[in-house]
Amino acid sequence: MSGWLVVAGLGPGAEHLVTPEVSAALAEATDVVGYIPYVARVAERPGLTLHASDNRVEVERAAHALLMAAEGRRVVVVSSGDPGVFAMASALFEALEARPEWQALDIRILPGITAMLAAAAAAGAPLGHDFCAINLSDNLKPWALIEKRLRLAAEADLAMAFYNPRSKSRPEGFVRALEILRAACGPDRLVTFARAVSTPEQHLRTVTLAEATPEMADMRTVVILGNSATRRVGRWVYTPRSAG
Amino acid sequence: MSGWLVVAGLGPGAEHLVTPEVSAALAEATDVVGYIPYVARVAERPGLTLHASDNRVEVERAAHALLMAAEGRRVVVVSSGDPGVFAMASALFEALEARPEWQALDIRILPGITAMLAAAAAAGAPLGHDFCAINLSDNLKPWALIEKRLRLAAEADLAMAFYNPRSKSRPEGFVRALEILRAACGPDRLVTFARAVSTPEQHLRTVTLAEATPEMADMRTVVILGNSATRRVGRWVYTPRSAG
Repeated sequence: MSGWLVVAGLGPGAEHLVTPEVSAALAEATDVVGYIPYVARVAERPGLTLHASDNRVEVERAAHALLMAAEGRRVVVVSSGDPGVFAMASALFEALEARPEWQALDIRILPGITAMLAAAAAAGAPLGHDFCAINLSDNLKPWALIEKRLRLAAEADLAMAFYNPRSKSRPEGFVRALEILRAACGPDRLVTFARAVSTPEQHLRTVTLAEATPEMADMRTVVILGNSATRRVGRWVYTPRSAG
Repeated sequence: MSGWLVVAGLGPGAEHLVTPEVSAALAEATDVVGYIPYVARVAERPGLTLHASDNRVEVERAAHALLMAAEGRRVVVVSSGDPGVFAMASALFEALEARPEWQALDIRILPGITAMLAAAAAAGAPLGHDFCAINLSDNLKPWALIEKRLRLAAEADLAMAFYNPRSKSRPEGFVRALEILRAACGPDRLVTFARAVSTPEQHLRTVTLAEATPEMADMRTVVILGNSATRRVGRWVYTPRSAG
């Protein structure tokens, strides 16, 4: 049996941000598994089967990928960005926990450029000092925990990158997050809204928290809040390396 | 004048983790600037001048790169990992702040695979839930601020990635960090020491905080502490997507 399973990060969108390691895995794969828009980024070719599935079925998708690898197929599970940051890698290990017989398979996680790093690079260097990454979706954790983390991160004066800031089904969460951050960090704190980074639809906008409105974000936006020293220089925004 | 300046992330070490975007910039460069071991990763070729400099001269190095770009040269400043994470991008903007006449130059930051993402992928998915990245070096911030951030991040139950955990000149900092984390997170919390990830010298080791000793880290190590739900599955360590 020569099957294997790779969980690969495709980066934020641009082809030139896909690592050669990931491209090589895709070139050898017999099967590609993932959320519809990510699978759509993989070119079709003879001998490759694309398995696109809907959102919110991550563990079932991982189990399907493991089953195919156990049958001897060469399977790549694709994630946007980096698979280990709010993406498919954890879902794979959840599936593996339930099926110990699959733990002997040849499994590798291949890192990718996660959205916050591409967004930070496009904006300047807002994550140039200590920072945190918080998923603002409350699908898998209570909203109260998100609020607690926002307050503690502000008290720690960490820059913050927010994934999944706002969905149609629960727009009120991001409204509340902005209120908490405004109270904790003050109205002058800089915040960058980076949408569809590295794609033709890329749109970047840096404003103060006083100017920020919930509509500036959607589910394709990563939001980066500076720390107390973050400032503009020319057309960029950056956080100095020193503090205190 | 056709000069430009790019700050590029070379990733953690392996050639297959360098993005095509960065490889293309290096292929067009007339000058490569950076810390000695990072410049050593760039192949020599006719028409390319390599400018290697020592550590802790980041702003001077950035100013030198800007000066060459202003003179019409095509300059790549190389960083290990991602240039926006505890690396050269912020130093560049510090230099730009001091010299506004250079702000009109053609300047781009190119993201890379930062050490914590490569380390997390090699270990499993320890950063699969909310997390923070903290530089444990006190060269540019007071040690008291580092301690405060460790305590608040533990209270927020964030996974944590530590850069520059330990140097020969100040080994006592990491000793103290482990004491604080043991008190805040308990003896059973999992911690991964990932050295020289993606290179032939890669060494990974996951232990509990009770078992962790300062000697497990050096300056080539990134340390990843799990959150309260982080656990082992098979030969991996991962943090579930859900909490609370």
